[in-house]
Amino acid sequence: MKPLLAAATLTLAAAALAATHPEVSYPTNYRNWTHVKSMVIEPGHALHATFGGIHHLYANEKAIQGYRGGQFPDGAVIVFDLLEAHAKENTVTEGARKIVGVMQRDAKKFAGTGGWGFEGFAGDSKTQRAVGANAATACFACHQARGQHEFVFSSYRP
Amino acid sequence: MKPLLAAATLTLAAAALAATHPEVSYPTNYRNWTHVKSMVIEPGHALHATFGGIHHLYANEKAIQGYRGGQFPDGAVIVFDLLEAHAKENTVTEGARKIVGVMQRDAKKFAGTGGWGFEGFAGDSKTQRAVGANAATACFACHQARGQHEFVFSSYRP
Repeated sequence: MKPLLAAATLTLAAAALAATHPEVSYPTNYRNWTHVKSMVIEPGHALHATFGGIHHLYANEKAIQGYRGGQFPDGAVIVFDLLEAHAKENTVTEGARKIVGVMQRDAKKFAGTGGWGFEGFAGDSKTQRAVGANAATACFACHQARGQHEFVFSSYRP
Repeated sequence: MKPLLAAATLTLAAAALAATHPEVSYPTNYRNWTHVKSMVIEPGHALHATFGGIHHLYANEKAIQGYRGGQFPDGAVIVFDLLEAHAKENTVTEGARKIVGVMQRDAKKFAGTGGWGFEGFAGDSKTQRAVGANAATACFACHQARGQHEFVFSSYRP
Protein backbone atom coordinates (compact mmCIF):
# COMPACT_ATOMS: atom_id res chain seq x y z
CA MET A 1 0.00 0.00 0.00
CA LYS A 2 1.32 3.48 -0.79
CA PRO A 3 2.11 5.67 2.22
CA LEU A 4 -0.61 8.25 1.53
CA LEU A 5 -3.24 5.60 1.01
CA ALA A 6 -2.12 3.80 4.16
CA ALA A 7 -2.41 7.03 6.16
CA ALA A 8 -5.85 7.71 4.75
CA THR A 9 -6.95 4.18 5.58
CA LEU A 10 -5.74 4.54 9.16
CA THR A 11 -7.52 7.89 9.52
CA LEU A 12 -10.74 6.39 8.23
CA ALA A 13 -10.39 3.41 10.55
CA ALA A 14 -9.83 5.70 13.55
CA ALA A 15 -12.83 7.81 12.58
CA ALA A 16 -14.97 4.70 12.25
CA LEU A 17 -13.83 3.47 15.66
CA ALA A 18 -14.55 6.81 17.26
CA ALA A 19 -17.96 6.98 15.61
CA THR A 20 -18.94 3.53 16.81
CA HIS A 21 -17.98 3.74 20.47
CA PRO A 22 -21.12 3.67 22.60
CA GLU A 23 -22.10 7.23 23.45
CA VAL A 24 -23.15 8.65 26.82
CA SER A 25 -26.11 11.05 26.85
CA TYR A 26 -25.95 14.57 28.27
CA PRO A 27 -27.67 14.36 31.70
CA THR A 28 -30.55 16.74 31.03
CA ASN A 29 -32.04 18.30 34.16
CA TYR A 30 -29.44 16.83 36.50
CA ARG A 31 -29.46 19.99 38.64
CA ASN A 32 -32.85 18.85 39.91
CA TRP A 33 -31.61 15.37 40.82
CA THR A 34 -30.68 14.34 44.34
CA HIS A 35 -27.43 15.77 45.68
CA VAL A 36 -25.29 12.86 46.89
CA LYS A 37 -22.28 14.60 48.46
CA SER A 38 -19.58 17.20 47.82
CA MET A 39 -15.84 17.62 48.19
CA VAL A 40 -13.11 20.19 47.59
CA ILE A 41 -9.81 19.19 45.93
CA GLU A 42 -7.12 21.83 46.50
CA PRO A 43 -3.78 22.67 44.86
CA GLY A 44 -1.14 20.14 45.89
CA HIS A 45 -3.46 17.14 45.60
CA ALA A 46 -2.39 14.47 43.09
CA LEU A 47 -5.69 14.83 41.21
CA HIS A 48 -5.73 18.63 41.22
CA ALA A 49 -4.80 19.02 37.56
CA THR A 50 -7.84 16.97 36.55
CA PHE A 51 -10.34 17.40 39.36
CA GLY A 52 -9.22 20.50 41.27
CA GLY A 53 -12.11 22.65 42.56
CA ILE A 54 -15.35 21.86 44.35
CA HIS A 55 -17.39 18.98 43.01
CA HIS A 56 -20.95 17.90 43.69
CA LEU A 57 -22.34 14.48 42.89
CA TYR A 58 -25.93 14.18 41.70
CA ALA A 59 -27.90 10.97 41.15
CA ASN A 60 -31.10 10.23 39.25
CA GLU A 61 -33.71 7.99 40.89
CA LYS A 62 -32.24 4.76 39.56
CA ALA A 63 -28.79 5.74 40.75
CA ILE A 64 -30.20 6.48 44.21
CA GLN A 65 -31.50 2.89 44.20
CA GLY A 66 -27.91 1.83 43.56
CA TYR A 67 -26.47 3.96 46.34
CA ARG A 68 -29.06 2.57 48.78
CA GLY A 69 -29.12 -1.06 47.68
CA GLY A 70 -25.64 -1.58 46.28
CA GLN A 71 -26.74 -2.54 42.75
CA PHE A 72 -27.11 0.09 40.08
CA PRO A 73 -29.79 -0.82 37.52
CA ASP A 74 -29.56 0.07 33.85
CA GLY A 75 -30.60 3.69 33.45
CA ALA A 76 -28.80 4.84 36.59
CA VAL A 77 -26.87 8.06 35.96
CA ILE A 78 -24.40 9.78 38.28
CA VAL A 79 -23.14 13.30 37.59
CA PHE A 80 -19.84 14.71 38.86
CA ASP A 81 -20.35 18.49 38.62
CA LEU A 82 -16.95 20.16 38.91
CA LEU A 83 -16.73 23.91 39.56
CA GLU A 84 -13.81 26.19 40.21
CA ALA A 85 -13.25 26.75 43.94
CA HIS A 86 -12.33 30.27 45.00
CA ALA A 87 -10.51 30.44 48.34
CA LYS A 88 -10.69 33.96 49.78
CA GLU A 89 -11.03 35.54 53.22
CA ASN A 90 -11.50 32.21 55.00
CA THR A 91 -14.20 30.99 52.66
CA VAL A 92 -14.34 28.68 49.67
CA THR A 93 -16.98 29.66 47.15
CA GLU A 94 -18.10 28.20 43.84
CA GLY A 95 -16.83 29.55 40.52
CA ALA A 96 -17.33 28.64 36.87
CA ARG A 97 -18.19 25.10 35.84
CA LYS A 98 -15.15 23.14 34.66
CA ILE A 99 -16.71 19.88 33.56
CA VAL A 100 -19.86 17.80 33.91
CA GLY A 101 -18.66 14.23 34.39
CA VAL A 102 -21.20 11.49 33.73
CA MET A 103 -21.45 7.78 34.54
CA GLN A 104 -24.36 6.14 32.72
CA ARG A 105 -25.32 2.56 33.56
CA ASP A 106 -26.09 0.15 30.72
CA ALA A 107 -24.57 -3.28 31.33
CA LYS A 108 -24.69 -4.36 27.68
CA LYS A 109 -23.95 -1.13 25.87
CA PHE A 110 -20.93 -0.33 28.05
CA ALA A 111 -19.81 -3.91 28.76
CA GLY A 112 -16.21 -2.95 27.95
CA THR A 113 -15.99 -0.55 30.90
CA GLY A 114 -17.75 -2.36 33.72
CA GLY A 115 -21.25 -1.68 32.47
CA TRP A 116 -20.80 2.07 32.82
CA GLY A 117 -20.39 4.66 30.11
CA PHE A 118 -18.11 7.57 31.04
CA GLU A 119 -18.13 11.04 29.52
CA GLY A 120 -17.20 14.59 30.41
CA PHE A 121 -18.98 17.64 28.99
CA ALA A 122 -16.66 20.64 28.99
CA GLY A 123 -17.74 23.68 31.01
CA ASP A 124 -21.38 24.53 30.34
CA SER A 125 -21.45 22.79 26.98
CA LYS A 126 -23.91 19.98 26.37
CA THR A 127 -22.07 18.77 23.28
CA GLN A 128 -18.32 19.29 23.72
CA ARG A 129 -17.08 15.86 24.81
CA ALA A 130 -13.82 15.59 26.76
CA VAL A 131 -13.66 11.79 26.95
CA GLY A 132 -15.21 10.37 23.81
CA ALA A 133 -13.65 7.05 22.82
CA ASN A 134 -11.07 7.21 25.64
CA ALA A 135 -13.28 6.08 28.53
CA ALA A 136 -11.27 2.91 29.21
CA THR A 137 -8.01 4.74 29.85
CA ALA A 138 -9.29 8.17 30.93
CA CYS A 139 -11.92 6.95 33.42
CA PHE A 140 -12.30 3.22 33.90
CA ALA A 141 -8.61 2.67 34.63
CA CYS A 142 -9.18 4.35 38.02
CA HIS A 143 -12.81 3.30 38.61
CA GLN A 144 -11.82 -0.33 38.10
CA ALA A 145 -10.31 -0.29 41.60
CA ARG A 146 -13.85 0.04 42.98
CA GLY A 147 -15.07 -3.29 41.61
CA GLN A 148 -16.56 -4.20 45.00
CA HIS A 149 -18.77 -1.10 44.78
CA GLU A 150 -19.90 -1.43 41.18
CA PHE A 151 -17.06 0.94 40.14
CA VAL A 152 -18.59 3.91 41.99
CA PHE A 153 -16.34 5.93 44.32
CA SER A 154 -18.95 8.00 46.15
CA SER A 155 -21.38 7.05 48.90
CA TYR A 156 -24.67 8.79 49.61
CA ARG A 157 -24.50 11.20 52.53
CA PRO A 158 -27.83 11.05 54.44
CA MET B 1 -45.55 40.30 95.11
CA LYS B 2 -43.29 37.91 97.00
CA PRO B 3 -39.98 37.14 95.20
CA LEU B 4 -40.71 33.44 94.66
CA LEU B 5 -44.17 34.16 93.29
CA ALA B 6 -42.76 36.86 91.03
CA ALA B 7 -40.14 34.46 89.70
CA ALA B 8 -42.80 31.80 89.08
CA THR B 9 -44.98 34.31 87.25
CA LEU B 10 -42.12 35.39 85.04
CA THR B 11 -41.28 31.76 84.26
CA LEU B 12 -44.90 31.07 83.31
CA ALA B 13 -45.04 34.21 81.19
CA ALA B 14 -41.86 33.20 79.36
CA ALA B 15 -43.21 29.69 78.81
CA ALA B 16 -46.46 31.09 77.41
CA LEU B 17 -44.56 33.40 75.09
CA ALA B 18 -42.37 30.57 73.88
CA ALA B 19 -45.38 28.32 73.37
CA THR B 20 -47.22 30.86 71.25
CA HIS B 21 -44.49 31.88 68.81
CA PRO B 22 -45.29 30.61 65.33
CA GLU B 23 -43.46 27.34 64.78
CA VAL B 24 -41.41 26.26 61.74
CA SER B 25 -41.89 22.67 60.51
CA TYR B 26 -39.03 20.21 60.14
CA PRO B 27 -38.26 20.08 56.37
CA THR B 28 -39.09 16.42 55.75
CA ASN B 29 -37.36 14.94 52.70
CA TYR B 30 -35.28 18.05 52.00
CA ARG B 31 -32.33 15.89 50.88
CA ASN B 32 -34.32 15.17 47.72
CA TRP B 33 -34.99 18.83 47.02
CA THR B 34 -32.99 20.88 44.53
CA HIS B 35 -29.44 21.78 45.56
CA VAL B 36 -29.06 25.55 45.24
CA LYS B 37 -25.37 26.11 46.01
CA SER B 38 -22.65 25.37 48.55
CA MET B 39 -19.92 27.18 50.46
CA VAL B 40 -17.16 26.49 52.97
CA ILE B 41 -16.62 28.81 55.96
CA GLU B 42 -13.20 28.27 57.54
CA PRO B 43 -11.63 29.11 60.89
CA GLY B 44 -10.81 32.83 61.08
CA HIS B 45 -14.07 33.90 59.41
CA ALA B 46 -16.29 36.18 61.51
CA LEU B 47 -19.17 33.71 61.24
CA HIS B 48 -17.09 30.61 61.93
CA ALA B 49 -18.37 30.10 65.47
CA THR B 50 -21.94 29.90 64.19
CA PHE B 51 -21.64 28.69 60.60
CA GLY B 52 -18.17 27.16 60.29
CA GLY B 53 -18.00 24.08 58.05
CA ILE B 54 -19.43 23.28 54.64
CA HIS B 55 -23.03 24.21 53.99
CA HIS B 56 -25.43 23.25 51.23
CA LEU B 57 -28.63 25.09 50.43
CA TYR B 58 -31.66 23.12 49.29
CA ALA B 59 -34.96 24.52 48.02
CA ASN B 60 -38.40 22.98 47.59
CA GLU B 61 -40.31 23.68 44.36
CA LYS B 62 -41.96 26.86 45.63
CA ALA B 63 -38.62 28.19 46.82
CA ILE B 64 -37.14 27.48 43.38
CA GLN B 65 -39.92 29.68 41.96
CA GLY B 66 -38.67 32.39 44.30
CA TYR B 67 -35.04 31.99 43.28
CA ARG B 68 -36.02 32.17 39.61
CA GLY B 69 -38.69 34.86 39.75
CA GLY B 70 -37.63 36.95 42.73
CA GLN B 71 -40.82 36.42 44.75
CA PHE B 72 -41.09 33.56 47.21
CA PRO B 73 -44.69 32.32 47.56
CA ASP B 74 -46.14 31.01 50.82
CA GLY B 75 -44.98 27.43 51.24
CA ALA B 76 -41.48 28.11 49.97
CA VAL B 77 -38.87 26.44 52.19
CA ILE B 78 -35.09 26.87 52.06
CA VAL B 79 -32.76 24.58 54.01
CA PHE B 80 -29.24 25.52 55.12
CA ASP B 81 -27.60 22.12 55.76
CA LEU B 82 -24.42 22.71 57.75
CA LEU B 83 -21.85 19.92 58.09
CA GLU B 84 -18.43 19.82 59.65
CA ALA B 85 -15.68 20.39 57.08
CA HIS B 86 -12.56 18.26 57.44
CA ALA B 87 -9.47 19.80 55.81
CA LYS B 88 -6.83 17.13 55.23
CA GLU B 89 -4.20 16.32 52.58
CA ASN B 90 -5.34 19.08 50.24
CA THR B 91 -8.99 18.12 50.37
CA VAL B 92 -12.04 19.35 52.25
CA THR B 93 -14.54 16.59 52.97
CA GLU B 94 -17.89 16.52 54.71
CA GLY B 95 -18.25 15.48 58.34
CA ALA B 96 -21.10 15.23 60.83
CA ARG B 97 -24.18 17.42 60.48
CA LYS B 98 -24.06 20.47 62.75
CA ILE B 99 -27.45 22.03 62.14
CA VAL B 100 -30.33 22.04 59.67
CA GLY B 101 -31.31 25.69 59.30
CA VAL B 102 -34.75 26.38 57.84
CA MET B 103 -36.51 29.40 56.34
CA GLN B 104 -40.22 28.76 55.83
CA ARG B 105 -42.32 31.31 53.94
CA ASP B 106 -45.71 32.28 55.31
CA ALA B 107 -46.35 36.00 55.01
CA LYS B 108 -49.06 36.12 57.66
CA LYS B 109 -47.84 33.56 60.17
CA PHE B 110 -44.34 35.00 60.26
CA ALA B 111 -45.22 38.66 59.64
CA GLY B 112 -42.94 39.73 62.51
CA THR B 113 -39.81 38.47 60.72
CA GLY B 114 -40.30 39.52 57.12
CA GLY B 115 -42.78 36.77 56.27
CA TRP B 116 -40.23 34.05 56.98
CA GLY B 117 -40.08 31.66 59.89
CA PHE B 118 -36.53 30.75 60.98
CA GLU B 119 -35.49 27.62 62.85
CA GLY B 120 -32.44 25.43 63.36
CA PHE B 121 -32.65 21.70 64.08
CA ALA B 122 -29.57 20.56 65.97
CA GLY B 123 -27.42 17.87 64.34
CA ASP B 124 -29.55 15.05 62.97
CA SER B 125 -32.45 15.78 65.31
CA LYS B 126 -35.87 16.58 63.87
CA THR B 127 -37.16 17.97 67.16
CA GLN B 128 -34.30 19.71 69.00
CA ARG B 129 -34.81 23.37 68.16
CA ALA B 130 -31.89 25.78 68.38
CA VAL B 131 -33.76 28.99 67.58
CA GLY B 132 -37.29 28.68 68.98
CA ALA B 133 -38.72 32.05 70.01
CA ASN B 134 -35.45 33.89 69.21
CA ALA B 135 -35.81 34.14 65.42
CA ALA B 136 -35.96 37.94 65.42
CA THR B 137 -32.59 38.39 67.09
CA ALA B 138 -30.86 35.11 66.15
CA CYS B 139 -31.75 35.13 62.43
CA PHE B 140 -33.78 38.04 61.12
CA ALA B 141 -31.40 40.66 62.51
CA CYS B 142 -28.91 39.65 59.79
CA HIS B 143 -31.38 38.60 57.07
CA GLN B 144 -33.07 42.00 57.35
CA ALA B 145 -30.16 43.48 55.40
CA ARG B 146 -31.37 41.51 52.35
CA GLY B 147 -34.73 43.28 52.14
CA GLN B 148 -34.24 43.85 48.40
CA HIS B 149 -33.99 40.07 47.92
CA GLU B 150 -36.92 39.00 50.09
CA PHE B 151 -34.44 38.48 52.99
CA VAL B 152 -32.69 35.56 51.23
CA PHE B 153 -28.87 35.63 51.01
CA SER B 154 -28.30 32.85 48.47
CA SER B 155 -28.76 32.82 44.70
CA TYR B 156 -29.42 29.72 42.62
CA ARG B 157 -26.33 28.42 40.82
CA PRO B 158 -27.34 27.08 37.38
